[in-house]
Amino acid sequence: MLLSDRVIKRIIELKSPIVVGLDPVIGRIPSVFKAGVADTFEGAADCIVAFNRAIIDAVCDYVPAVKPQLAFYELYGFAGVRAFEMTAAYAKSKGLFVIADGKKNDIGNVASAYASAFLGEVPLLGGGPAPGPFGADFLTVSPFLGTESLTPFFETALNFDKGVFVLVRTSNAGSGTMQEAVTGEDNNSVSDYIAGVINEQSMRVKGEYGYSSIGAVVGATYPKAAAELRKRMPASLILVPGYGAQGASAAEILPNFNPDGLGAVVNASRSVIFAYESEFSTACSLAEFSASVEKAVQLMQREIYSALKSEYPKMIY
Amino acid sequence: MLLSDRVIKRIIELKSPIVVGLDPVIGRIPSVFKAGVADTFEGAADCIVAFNRAIIDAVCDYVPAVKPQLAFYELYGFAGVRAFEMTAAYAKSKGLFVIADGKKNDIGNVASAYASAFLGEVPLLGGGPAPGPFGADFLTVSPFLGTESLTPFFETALNFDKGVFVLVRTSNAGSGTMQEAVTGEDNNSVSDYIAGVINEQSMRVKGEYGYSSIGAVVGATYPKAAAELRKRMPASLILVPGYGAQGASAAEILPNFNPDGLGAVVNASRSVIFAYESEFSTACSLAEFSASVEKAVQLMQREIYSALKSEYPKMIY
Repeated sequence: MLLSDRVIKRIIELKSPIVVGLDPVIGRIPSVFKAGVADTFEGAADCIVAFNRAIIDAVCDYVPAVKPQLAFYELYGFAGVRAFEMTAAYAKSKGLFVIADGKKNDIGNVASAYASAFLGEVPLLGGGPAPGPFGADFLTVSPFLGTESLTPFFETALNFDKGVFVLVRTSNAGSGTMQEAVTGEDNNSVSDYIAGVINEQSMRVKGEYGYSSIGAVVGATYPKAAAELRKRMPASLILVPGYGAQGASAAEILPNFNPDGLGAVVNASRSVIFAYESEFSTACSLAEFSASVEKAVQLMQREIYSALKSEYPKMIY
Repeated sequence: MLLSDRVIKRIIELKSPIVVGLDPVIGRIPSVFKAGVADTFEGAADCIVAFNRAIIDAVCDYVPAVKPQLAFYELYGFAGVRAFEMTAAYAKSKGLFVIADGKKNDIGNVASAYASAFLGEVPLLGGGPAPGPFGADFLTVSPFLGTESLTPFFETALNFDKGVFVLVRTSNAGSGTMQEAVTGEDNNSVSDYIAGVINEQSMRVKGEYGYSSIGAVVGATYPKAAAELRKRMPASLILVPGYGAQGASAAEILPNFNPDGLGAVVNASRSVIFAYESEFSTACSLAEFSASVEKAVQLMQREIYSALKSEYPKMIY
């Protein structure tokens, strides 16, 4: 079964088009995950793995996917990157899809190397190629270097049945300067132009539910632009950041979906993984921490699912 | 002495505004660097470190800086990232400046995490912060998420006397679609708008030679645009890719410089590190490999220096 179908099947099973962002910040991780670890990069990385495992355990029955953000792992160098790999492997062992959030962008053989590392196979010294080290299902990429810079990502995703989410409209306040700039391609804005490129790629391989795993990132903070972009890329999966800590409500994410209630996954990071902070101090127990994450993700699921149900009464789940 | 002055002092000493890109590709690395290493990610990483050390030994008396491209290291997961760290440390031990080429782009606390990891200090579990794991002097960043996404990189660079090179105009054929799009900011193109942002930041801290380590990436393949961008950012260091394997000649990189012969560093990767291929097979000896790298970098230095001398007779070195 194609990746896009497997993701959608799980969304329907759980009634949950939701992604939990694994964005560990050492200063906000409860002490229970810090016991006995060294005050080194390796110690910080160990602490992050323990923290992430607890979150994955708490959310794996409620959401289809997690999205570790590479920056928070690179902070601890190779030890942190190893923590990323261990997190991805643990998430996959619990049945979760993994979206590597790296916003990679480069050209030619460099873009191919990123695509291979995250979505494909990598060359070794002798013998055949090995599966890439990160074991991601999806990778976020940035289109600043133009369409040709995206090609290696599209091709690798299609060859290995993986997915990409290309930045189209980001959730931050100042995203418009670059993303609403007018290109020489039929006077489309940068966002609209890239959406067209993604749509074309999405049409190459669609699954049973009509969706492709060649997708886009469209922030929840621009619902009007989101409605327009949704129409330009009807078959693309859209990753929607901006919910929760970044301020967007359940109503605002609705334009990112199609009337079937599908086509988008909404990410929340801090509002779920640090939910304990509204009830407990960093001295909370593992049980208290886990319960807070579970409660936050269940609340988010109910909010989004009921908003979808009332907006799209004919949705398919 | 400020970073920009230290880099320029070394450029003047060596008469060499040149950067060597450390872009290892396993299939093109001579066998001498593969003896006894395992057919694993760790083995590939060990091979890369040995290859890079030979290049660094061969070029450290001819160029001020090296530019390892992160993609080629991430290909081997955490083992590859450790090879990146070891390469950067070895380069610094040989007096070279290190430009980490990651084209990072993200917002808010994510951008801050990248800036801290590459240019600043990172938080540990207890005690004070530690220097970031990568030990880079400069980091390349991508501006697709808008000016606010660049702020953490600028601030970290200024706080820790490090540098950034922001993508302004990339060397690939299709860069214009995104980078020549017209923004709502005084109808400036994306490139011109970002150049203005960089120029403003460059003016905050300039060294004795009049340059800032807040810089730009401007490809050698667009000399007309380069001349215009040079004027918009008179005090910014400009990193110039596209020389050598990507096709730009010494004449084409001239517009990236000011009449003092300063203000830019020209990168070459494949034409230097794989120079052995025009004379030898992968069975070449370490001495043959090193001689080919040394010869290629000396040739590049002579070509660029004499082109500069004839274009800018009053240059200061």
